[in-house]
Amino acid sequence: MAQTSIIIRLELDHAQATFADVASAISTAGGDITSIDVIRPGQDTSVRDITVDVAESAETEVVEALRRQEGIKLINVSDRTFLVHLGGKIAVQPNMPIRNRDDLSRVYTPGVAKVCTAIHDNPNKVYSLTIKRNTVAVISDGTAVLGLGDIGPHAAAPVMEGKAMLFKQLAGVDAFPICLDTKDTEEIIRTIKAISPVFGGINLEDISSPRCFEIETRLADELDIPVFHDDQHGTAVVLLAGLLNALKVVGKRIDEVRVVVNGIGAAGVSVCKMLLAAGVRRLVPVDKDGAIVRGGTYGLPMWSWLAEQPQVEATAGGLKDVLRGADVFIGVSRGGLLGAEDLQTMAPERIVFAMANPRPEVDPEEALPFVRVLGTGRSDYPNQINNVLAFPGIFRGALDCRATRINEPMKLAAARAIASVVSESELSEQYIIPSIFNEQVVTKVRHAIIEAAILTGTARRTPPDFR
Amino acid sequence: MAQTSIIIRLELDHAQATFADVASAISTAGGDITSIDVIRPGQDTSVRDITVDVAESAETEVVEALRRQEGIKLINVSDRTFLVHLGGKIAVQPNMPIRNRDDLSRVYTPGVAKVCTAIHDNPNKVYSLTIKRNTVAVISDGTAVLGLGDIGPHAAAPVMEGKAMLFKQLAGVDAFPICLDTKDTEEIIRTIKAISPVFGGINLEDISSPRCFEIETRLADELDIPVFHDDQHGTAVVLLAGLLNALKVVGKRIDEVRVVVNGIGAAGVSVCKMLLAAGVRRLVPVDKDGAIVRGGTYGLPMWSWLAEQPQVEATAGGLKDVLRGADVFIGVSRGGLLGAEDLQTMAPERIVFAMANPRPEVDPEEALPFVRVLGTGRSDYPNQINNVLAFPGIFRGALDCRATRINEPMKLAAARAIASVVSESELSEQYIIPSIFNEQVVTKVRHAIIEAAILTGTARRTPPDFR
Repeated sequence: MAQTSIIIRLELDHAQATFADVASAISTAGGDITSIDVIRPGQDTSVRDITVDVAESAETEVVEALRRQEGIKLINVSDRTFLVHLGGKIAVQPNMPIRNRDDLSRVYTPGVAKVCTAIHDNPNKVYSLTIKRNTVAVISDGTAVLGLGDIGPHAAAPVMEGKAMLFKQLAGVDAFPICLDTKDTEEIIRTIKAISPVFGGINLEDISSPRCFEIETRLADELDIPVFHDDQHGTAVVLLAGLLNALKVVGKRIDEVRVVVNGIGAAGVSVCKMLLAAGVRRLVPVDKDGAIVRGGTYGLPMWSWLAEQPQVEATAGGLKDVLRGADVFIGVSRGGLLGAEDLQTMAPERIVFAMANPRPEVDPEEALPFVRVLGTGRSDYPNQINNVLAFPGIFRGALDCRATRINEPMKLAAARAIASVVSESELSEQYIIPSIFNEQVVTKVRHAIIEAAILTGTARRTPPDFR
Repeated sequence: MAQTSIIIRLELDHAQATFADVASAISTAGGDITSIDVIRPGQDTSVRDITVDVAESAETEVVEALRRQEGIKLINVSDRTFLVHLGGKIAVQPNMPIRNRDDLSRVYTPGVAKVCTAIHDNPNKVYSLTIKRNTVAVISDGTAVLGLGDIGPHAAAPVMEGKAMLFKQLAGVDAFPICLDTKDTEEIIRTIKAISPVFGGINLEDISSPRCFEIETRLADELDIPVFHDDQHGTAVVLLAGLLNALKVVGKRIDEVRVVVNGIGAAGVSVCKMLLAAGVRRLVPVDKDGAIVRGGTYGLPMWSWLAEQPQVEATAGGLKDVLRGADVFIGVSRGGLLGAEDLQTMAPERIVFAMANPRPEVDPEEALPFVRVLGTGRSDYPNQINNVLAFPGIFRGALDCRATRINEPMKLAAARAIASVVSESELSEQYIIPSIFNEQVVTKVRHAIIEAAILTGTARRTPPDFR
């Protein structure tokens, strides 16, 4: 069980309670006091910060026990998660100090004028003389944040800051969060185009479907820097990496397997596209009303596109119907849709990716006895499909070769690169996908992205290690 | 004469020239070789980086001398100003490392979800749990950059990055540059409103007049965070600080002097407003067509506003006409408008602020014998009016008290604070304004801003040192 550390600020009324009462209440509820700071001492009352180690499940009990105690007034309870967020999680730092007027005249007026003029005369120099070379915007409108839904731009900011941290730590990319106070598709497109000059890439994040398709497609076409909606493609890239390795484990070929994808929203559409690009020839996309079939007519342009693909099956049916005989199930939908009995209708050597979060499409404990390979979005089971494996290396590569876009061949190359981090000898049912802390991941993804960008003509620069 | 350091990359054809030829050419042209790096050695040719110390005026001569030499091919010449700009001048840094999955689960999913929820439930928490508390956007559309004019958003970026460095170094404010790829007033307003959620303040920069007035006014009214166009108010605040001290030097009172302000653009309008707020009772605003007079009708709303003010004089005339008998001349216009003979028509104990850059309204050498106090925008004369004295402390104060706006009383307080850094005993004709490196400046401006914000009801928070 996960332990957490909480800091409780309380006021003690000395006439009604002693510190021993506090300690006893905390201990009885399952907490372990690790430090005490007296914030305001006093004769009649005193204020103290008490740091308590406690199982996450018992956090509420500890707080409630203190609340019930006479003579104790709870002022504030902070857990470590809130504490690391105080004041935000990123900072903007100058790359050099301005020590004197000589320094100032170089980084600011009057010296900076000749740098501005050089960029004005040769626009390409914006890449060498400004932060554009290494900077990505992490942009959300706050409409589809984690499992929380439409919580608005302010509440979305901590996720975007977290992503900016990961960009820097894992791939050395400077990323800055931009949270948009508009949900209008056209206004989002206009706004992002307007602020694009200082950025070398745009990472779209947590924008709800179907607006995310139009926003990403239009921006990719209208801007000359890469635009990547991580919820769609990050998931798809890592999932495909997992699938490629899972197929090796079960000894099946990608052009033979029948694949059911459930949930044709932002991630599901991208998953389907990548599966087709990777060579899947028998695809069954399923949404709430059942399978999307070849030749069918649909209101959403992306669904219509799928219905036109020759690899998409023509047989209609609900999820449980079409699941019969499938080799692979991929869920990017919602929790608790399937039971063990449904999985048993699939072909032998089943591969299941149940990625709804926090509750997967099928309960992992229930599924495990009946599948050969199981992947989820959760960190407490093996084979976590986590898009942290994809976006840092993808943008590192795209920035280094000044790619104009991130196309399907580049994403496919990234998926293969992630899969390749797990060697043949390491590969097993329990280990089809590397850890996000594996340092080879970013290096290999970057290399694959640059190679594919050069091959497909989207690279505007050949990095020194590719010359 | 200012020295600079340049790095020359050249290819030497060994059949035609030796390194001694290179050294001799550089030395004859006035350069001093300080280091040599062989980049690519070779039998027939070699590539070297040669670092040369040289007077700025002789930089071209050194380069030309090498260009004329047989057997030397110049590959690149970088001076130190360009070198400090390579890769940009700022970086985004995580405030803590993500060492393991435990850290990751706090700063990103799944832990971050409860932080998002807390902000969604209580929007004020965005100030404690995200970077909003300490972060300012430095925003330009690149239309009025330094003396360069409309050079576009990409070429403007180095100035905005330089400003971000100053914000952090001088006041601990995290500032991020945003360069807008649009010149449309409405679209600029919409864009800035849309990206405002992560920012605690907006510093507008280098936006041309008259659009800057509408943009700033509308944003200040429609956003709940401070919006400050530095070209207007930064200059005005520092100028007023200088004027307050200059008046002490000459022994005149602000409510008695007659003040001519030449150039009623972005900065000039703000200067006039601040002078009125500070108590000036005899004001003569002048633009290209002569004095703006009380009761006149004008096309620009800001000029009409001036024409309605009782302190504005009603007598028409050109600059030289209205300058007769004035106590103070303030130029925020263009170079070389006035000569010594014009200054001699002013009242005795003349105060002249000639702030056109790089060439002031009157040549400083020509003016000095005929004025008591002279201020310019240049760093090579005493009394430089530099808005670096204002914006760091103004935003430090505004962020610390979560001011909803920066109003006239706050700007006035900032000007008085800057003036107060120069003590009565230090004050002289040569020293009316502190150095931008004087550490008292930010502290005093911050204090004044917070005090005025609390008094005028724009502060949403009382910082601990004010309780």
